[in-house]
Amino acid sequence: MVWDKVQALVFDVFGTVVDWRNGVAREAEPFLAKYGQGRIQPLALADAWRRQYSPSMEAVRSGQRPFVRLDVLHRENLEKALRELGVNPDEIPPAELDALNLAWHCLDPWPDSVAGLTRLKTRYIIAPLSNGNIRLMLDMAKRAGLPWDAILGAEVAQAYKPTPQAYLRTADVLGLAPDQMCLVAAHNNDLAAARQCGLKTAFVRRSTEHGPDQKKDLVAEQDWDVVADDFGQLADRLLA
Amino acid sequence: MVWDKVQALVFDVFGTVVDWRNGVAREAEPFLAKYGQGRIQPLALADAWRRQYSPSMEAVRSGQRPFVRLDVLHRENLEKALRELGVNPDEIPPAELDALNLAWHCLDPWPDSVAGLTRLKTRYIIAPLSNGNIRLMLDMAKRAGLPWDAILGAEVAQAYKPTPQAYLRTADVLGLAPDQMCLVAAHNNDLAAARQCGLKTAFVRRSTEHGPDQKKDLVAEQDWDVVADDFGQLADRLLA
Repeated sequence: MVWDKVQALVFDVFGTVVDWRNGVAREAEPFLAKYGQGRIQPLALADAWRRQYSPSMEAVRSGQRPFVRLDVLHRENLEKALRELGVNPDEIPPAELDALNLAWHCLDPWPDSVAGLTRLKTRYIIAPLSNGNIRLMLDMAKRAGLPWDAILGAEVAQAYKPTPQAYLRTADVLGLAPDQMCLVAAHNNDLAAARQCGLKTAFVRRSTEHGPDQKKDLVAEQDWDVVADDFGQLADRLLA
Repeated sequence: MVWDKVQALVFDVFGTVVDWRNGVAREAEPFLAKYGQGRIQPLALADAWRRQYSPSMEAVRSGQRPFVRLDVLHRENLEKALRELGVNPDEIPPAELDALNLAWHCLDPWPDSVAGLTRLKTRYIIAPLSNGNIRLMLDMAKRAGLPWDAILGAEVAQAYKPTPQAYLRTADVLGLAPDQMCLVAAHNNDLAAARQCGLKTAFVRRSTEHGPDQKKDLVAEQDWDVVADDFGQLADRLLA
């Protein structure tokens, strides 16, 4: 592998850089205290909400629906998740649903994320290549101190991962060939799509993204160019 | 003025945040030593190159040409500027022209820019709203330490200032109404276009952008919401 060619590291964010599950649960707690009928666990809402994530993007990926930013999909998905848990969102003031929708803007990074990114930034361009929209990523970064060089991803590319355009347009915006860019992700399917587009790939294990009983993405399912247990180890390998 | 509504400051960059004229001249110096026939002053090339800037965007603004990023226009404009100065670019290796084209990626900020932006970032979202493309702005920020929260502007909006879409799509990406955003610029015409779109306006005087004999933009030509002599004074006023 000619790693010297790589000029930019682009990052999956939800699950790879930040802990969406505990963050959403934390933000949902006061909401559920009011509207959860005393029986919905915050983590259960986080999981139900996230289950709608990929299906909701499918209409955009398939071209049935024009690109809309993730904030819009999250807001629709929140209503679906609440219904699934037996709560009727029509009985909740829309402003309260709007406020809860911002939970995704204020997720905490994994403990090693900021320090690792700060080290990696000294040698590489670092940017999110997330399905999250620009304002979401910006709010998250400002709150958590994520030191991105730029905010790229689905909204800039106007395409959701794992559509090839999401990866290829990001490389194009950076003026790079695909193999001058490496995707860092905790998800084998994201890395597989990136590799198909010619990107380099780095797998970071996040074995509690889905909680203590996580089943998937515990191991690298292909020979990714780099495999690391956290961003500290990733920086050790990429800066060596 | 209800300034409390403003959540984001978006900045013109060339001339307002960075000194393009001396930066381009510095980068052009070794090039002209080789190809300038001993008679072209670096500052003269900087001025000739910049004179092509706005006219070159007009084809995109008018819809005659699809959006292309500023790096592409700068490269075309370099050839025009050289011809105007009596140098035939066809006799110069394209790789040398490509290298000089990156001069715009490594301009120095005005002495007060980084400190002022760092202060303003504590209260506001700060982002460029420049006609420069993402990679150009990114390289510049990384080299100079400009602490942007995100890189917005013409390439994200797919429209060049002063086209209204450049301002309005930037507000939309930030999820803000136009009057929740303030343009900071050293150019009265940029501020006038932003005000037409409903943005708040801050004029920062950069009286040597065009050199010691500058004639334009020495004074605020409308009652802009804020007027300041540098980014320190701007921060004093907006953080008061």
